Amino acid sequence: MNLRVRDLSICTGSISIAILNTADAAKLDLHYADRILIRKGSAKIVASIDITTTSEFVLPGEIGLFEEVYKKLAAKDGDIVEVHLAEKPKSLVFIRQKLMGERLSPEQMKCIVDDIANDRLTDIEITYFVAACSTQELDSNEIVSLAKAMVNTGKVLKLKSKIVADKHCIGGVAANRTTMVVVPIVAAAGLTIPKTSSRAITSAAGTADTVEVLCDVTLSLEKMKQVVEEHGGCLVWGGSMDLAPADDKIIRVEHPLSLDPIGQLVASILSKKKAVGATHVLVDIPVGRGTKAGTRSKALVLKRKFEKVSKALNMKIKVVITDGSQPIGNGVGPALEARDVLWTLQNSKHSALDLKEKAIFMAGEMLDLTGRTRKGNGHRLARQLLENGTAYLKFIDILRAQGAKVIYPEQIELAAFSEDYKAISGGRVIHVDNGHINKIARIAGSPLDYKAGLYLHVHKGANVKKGQKLLTVYSDSKEKLDFAITACKSLMPVTVSR
Amino acid sequence: MNLRVRDLSICTGSISIAILNTADAAKLDLHYADRILIRKGSAKIVASIDITTTSEFVLPGEIGLFEEVYKKLAAKDGDIVEVHLAEKPKSLVFIRQKLMGERLSPEQMKCIVDDIANDRLTDIEITYFVAACSTQELDSNEIVSLAKAMVNTGKVLKLKSKIVADKHCIGGVAANRTTMVVVPIVAAAGLTIPKTSSRAITSAAGTADTVEVLCDVTLSLEKMKQVVEEHGGCLVWGGSMDLAPADDKIIRVEHPLSLDPIGQLVASILSKKKAVGATHVLVDIPVGRGTKAGTRSKALVLKRKFEKVSKALNMKIKVVITDGSQPIGNGVGPALEARDVLWTLQNSKHSALDLKEKAIFMAGEMLDLTGRTRKGNGHRLARQLLENGTAYLKFIDILRAQGAKVIYPEQIELAAFSEDYKAISGGRVIHVDNGHINKIARIAGSPLDYKAGLYLHVHKGANVKKGQKLLTVYSDSKEKLDFAITACKSLMPVTVSR
Repeated sequence: MNLRVRDLSICTGSISIAILNTADAAKLDLHYADRILIRKGSAKIVASIDITTTSEFVLPGEIGLFEEVYKKLAAKDGDIVEVHLAEKPKSLVFIRQKLMGERLSPEQMKCIVDDIANDRLTDIEITYFVAACSTQELDSNEIVSLAKAMVNTGKVLKLKSKIVADKHCIGGVAANRTTMVVVPIVAAAGLTIPKTSSRAITSAAGTADTVEVLCDVTLSLEKMKQVVEEHGGCLVWGGSMDLAPADDKIIRVEHPLSLDPIGQLVASILSKKKAVGATHVLVDIPVGRGTKAGTRSKALVLKRKFEKVSKALNMKIKVVITDGSQPIGNGVGPALEARDVLWTLQNSKHSALDLKEKAIFMAGEMLDLTGRTRKGNGHRLARQLLENGTAYLKFIDILRAQGAKVIYPEQIELAAFSEDYKAISGGRVIHVDNGHINKIARIAGSPLDYKAGLYLHVHKGANVKKGQKLLTVYSDSKEKLDFAITACKSLMPVTVSR
Repeated sequence: MNLRVRDLSICTGSISIAILNTADAAKLDLHYADRILIRKGSAKIVASIDITTTSEFVLPGEIGLFEEVYKKLAAKDGDIVEVHLAEKPKSLVFIRQKLMGERLSPEQMKCIVDDIANDRLTDIEITYFVAACSTQELDSNEIVSLAKAMVNTGKVLKLKSKIVADKHCIGGVAANRTTMVVVPIVAAAGLTIPKTSSRAITSAAGTADTVEVLCDVTLSLEKMKQVVEEHGGCLVWGGSMDLAPADDKIIRVEHPLSLDPIGQLVASILSKKKAVGATHVLVDIPVGRGTKAGTRSKALVLKRKFEKVSKALNMKIKVVITDGSQPIGNGVGPALEARDVLWTLQNSKHSALDLKEKAIFMAGEMLDLTGRTRKGNGHRLARQLLENGTAYLKFIDILRAQGAKVIYPEQIELAAFSEDYKAISGGRVIHVDNGHINKIARIAGSPLDYKAGLYLHVHKGANVKKGQKLLTVYSDSKEKLDFAITACKSLMPVTVSR
């Protein structure tokens, strides 16, 4: 069938879409989300179709083209294109099988991931895949094939070093900027650690948001490689580098239902590690109220999955289960967390001691895991490198290589308005709630207003007097500050027991 | 946040969509498919958002509005609207629960169906619901709540009669236009049968397509009511009347993966019956090669579900399992099937005897079920009403009430080109394949070219000689006819055993 082009000037950023009139769709026996092959001269493209129900919009004889299709065909408004029914992608059969409870072979998984990475599936179809993996839990073999397929359909980092270290924390703990302290310690010990991080989704700051207070984090893969080869480590945002791109498309459809099936979680994390060439991976699973893993027993299940899949991906792994029942560090929000990191690396009197000790523990585990230190000696070397300032110097080198903006904690600006939230009675702090702390910092404006957030004056176990400062909220508007303080009063993020 | 309106002149026909620039989405902490509340003066609407990744399209400070949103807000290009984050629909929590294997309460099911019917869910979210129902099979209670919710979120037909009969066939059998013979018999017996039918999806013709050869089938609910009150029956297309509208939106997302979970199937059928006020329902489950139910044991499972759910919906039901292993009737394609129906009602020498006998059986069951006849006597009355011409006269009344176009079989035009497909060897016909027969008729052009299709000269059990006509294909183009005959030769829809 020949149709006249109508330019819709719309970019979808995903699968190519074309719009037909109901009459033409009927003639071609096409339904919503069917595929058509559109040809103009030698150019051709497969698009998923939408069908208009009104007569005014795309008329009979016309085809509405979204920007991606329009450009690939080099079409002009009014051009005539040829339209045919196209085959459905093969992967749909496999997605259906998975939904019906069958196991997927590596080839089938590869086919699905390849179609996702190359924008050949619609949102509906990717959703069926995620739903299938949520209800028919992936076994270890399937997770391995998923992870491999995600690596193979994206870019990979190739470094000279034979040993490449990497770390990951499952999340759920407020603040907890351990990575920013671990990377310079590990790099200072002579190891290679090409660290990519994400931005905040539901927390007050992600590692990428926090590093961005100090330097650039949006690097090309080439620039990242250069920084790592020169300084042994980097701290960059992983989202701009096309590492395991299918993963981001899967996460996009997980969001509406806040799904995160265990198989996808493990494949997602380990594929990003494999894509940067990691040979040794340290995974931190915090447990306790409000953490992602929740209980210790759930964390153990997750730990075993990580171990099994890592092995199949040919990466050595150490999974540590840590206490995540309260925030780690004092600052919450990008600027406040970045200041904590600098203070800690400088061994300042303002150091966040919990952050320091966790970072030494993690870095020590990494040094042992890679064989850089003899088993059990890693923690000592990590402490030494942190306390003698070597790690701080390494950090500054990395910041400079990534276009440092700020290197001294005093240079970090906080939001203009602040207010203290105080204890209404004296007693012992028995709980500091991660979820509430993140929520209050977000109400204050973080992570987008990177100067906003809060500073915790107490942690679990502290004894406080009535009227003592529990936390200080920072915000760039008086209104948001008031909202945040009101939220403190209703949420009571710090539980004091008499 | 205030944004400047940009009219995209696009209708989506489903949930309202607005497009934001990445920068504004970040400021509002919004992700793909999140909801926003858009206000302009006193007008407001909730829309799902899409986010542009390019800078050229919807600029920072702008909001791209699809036609539905644009009109409801009475907005003009360049107007300023107010945008806030809107709550997610409550039903998402329940969909997630179902996906995780929990049972849904009637209230939860109602909430989901209500959000679907009122376009408050995105395709991704409806897909999760369908996926959940496919893997976590609905139990009878859930099917009942689903059916009730589908009825309650649409229009309903209210008739005077205390007894309202209805029938449904699960499908998969080529031709099989039993409904068009059963309705006039049942109405001629003095019963009320407000029959709605669907159009073809994968077959060569649906009942609605076939009735449309003879009269109008797109009636308003009011007009339908008038026809039924006057003549006791009607034969209309169910798609235009807003009966159980959520069902159509669910079917739309089932299509890409060709899903049809048993719970949805039962709820879909029985909700449409309940919506027309049916008190007595006859369901036909054909079994055999190529039918939807497949085997007898699967049909029995389905039968029990129908019985349980009907009871809870307060409808008397009879489920019959019939032989669906070959086409019923001789004509395949709207015009050819309509001609079979007229011939059969006229008791012509061209009557399709298998169609006649099946219609008498079905109508007889219905007469017994409703108590119109004493148990076991229905078939006799049905045969009498058909053979003495009463049913034919009733049929003509109904056609006239629906704006009859054709009432004599000789008036039905067939496609201009035809060609016979003949036996390549003599023997006994052991199989006539429903799927292949439908496929060949579709290649010839049906159902869109309603005059196209094929005519079967033989059925299972017939003895044929080499060179004897097995079927005749009709098409309005020589090219399609050639394709269809080539398909006959490769598919061999009629199996002859020596």
